[in-house]
Amino acid sequence: MELLEGLLTRRSVRTFTPEPVSRGQVLEILRAGSWAPSGLNNQPWRFAIVFDAAVRGRLAQLTRYGRVIEAAPVCLPVFMDREVGYHEVKDHQSIGACIENLLLAAHAQGLGAVWLGEILKSAAEVREVLGLPANLELMAVVAVGYPKGAVKAPARRKLSELIVKEL
Amino acid sequence: MELLEGLLTRRSVRTFTPEPVSRGQVLEILRAGSWAPSGLNNQPWRFAIVFDAAVRGRLAQLTRYGRVIEAAPVCLPVFMDREVGYHEVKDHQSIGACIENLLLAAHAQGLGAVWLGEILKSAAEVREVLGLPANLELMAVVAVGYPKGAVKAPARRKLSELIVKEL
Repeated sequence: MELLEGLLTRRSVRTFTPEPVSRGQVLEILRAGSWAPSGLNNQPWRFAIVFDAAVRGRLAQLTRYGRVIEAAPVCLPVFMDREVGYHEVKDHQSIGACIENLLLAAHAQGLGAVWLGEILKSAAEVREVLGLPANLELMAVVAVGYPKGAVKAPARRKLSELIVKEL
Repeated sequence: MELLEGLLTRRSVRTFTPEPVSRGQVLEILRAGSWAPSGLNNQPWRFAIVFDAAVRGRLAQLTRYGRVIEAAPVCLPVFMDREVGYHEVKDHQSIGACIENLLLAAHAQGLGAVWLGEILKSAAEVREVLGLPANLELMAVVAVGYPKGAVKAPARRKLSELIVKEL
């Protein structure tokens, strides 16, 4: 798939077939994430990989979108390492850039993925389920699998609404 | 260029040839940005397009990296519309995802781009130079042009350092 086409055709995929995702595919996804830009090149992103269905079941209870986490063959909780953070806004932005790379790298491999943010309300519990230290702040969970069914493109504002000035 | 290859080969480009960038190329870049994911699909990103050299000169005075803004044929200040924001962290993350799409869409077209964040210290002055209202909060300036010279890949942490748990 072409890069520009990939940027325009990525969609949030919330239903998955049972077909498994390999560890190699996951590592390709994370490698793409690791090439996101970050301020001062601080690379604040950290990743967990959760294939285990029982652990996914426990994570699923921590969000309204638990069925997505249960249905996806693999979930990737994304964290920010507070020990390397330097600027709250810029660190959160670069984590967002990293997550976009994860989603695009899934798309590139014919996989579907969705960025789950509502689970941030349960950040402490997610860390507890995964047994992770307090310097790792939950930023999102990305659910990945083979898409099941068609995904409709959500509405987008017109470019003319988004361009506030041209000089 | 293939999507996965594009994710791995995008670099921050800070020096540019004088060759102009067309309005059509800029719109392709912004269109890709508009397809980033956002929480509740709130699409909080807004864009300015600055070709004008005199305006770029004024913006250049507001950051330590002014020479990049002066050398780039076009600069794209990116804003968050506070009126549609709903969650500080998630809005900043989705703006980061949008900026990553801008950088990747430049790369896809053979252009180079760099994400400038240091200018956030001068957010109010940037808004003043561009004559924009206070609900638009500066998030970054993306400088775009044809790359001049080679760009070295900055160091990246190994994947094994980034994966904090596998279950």
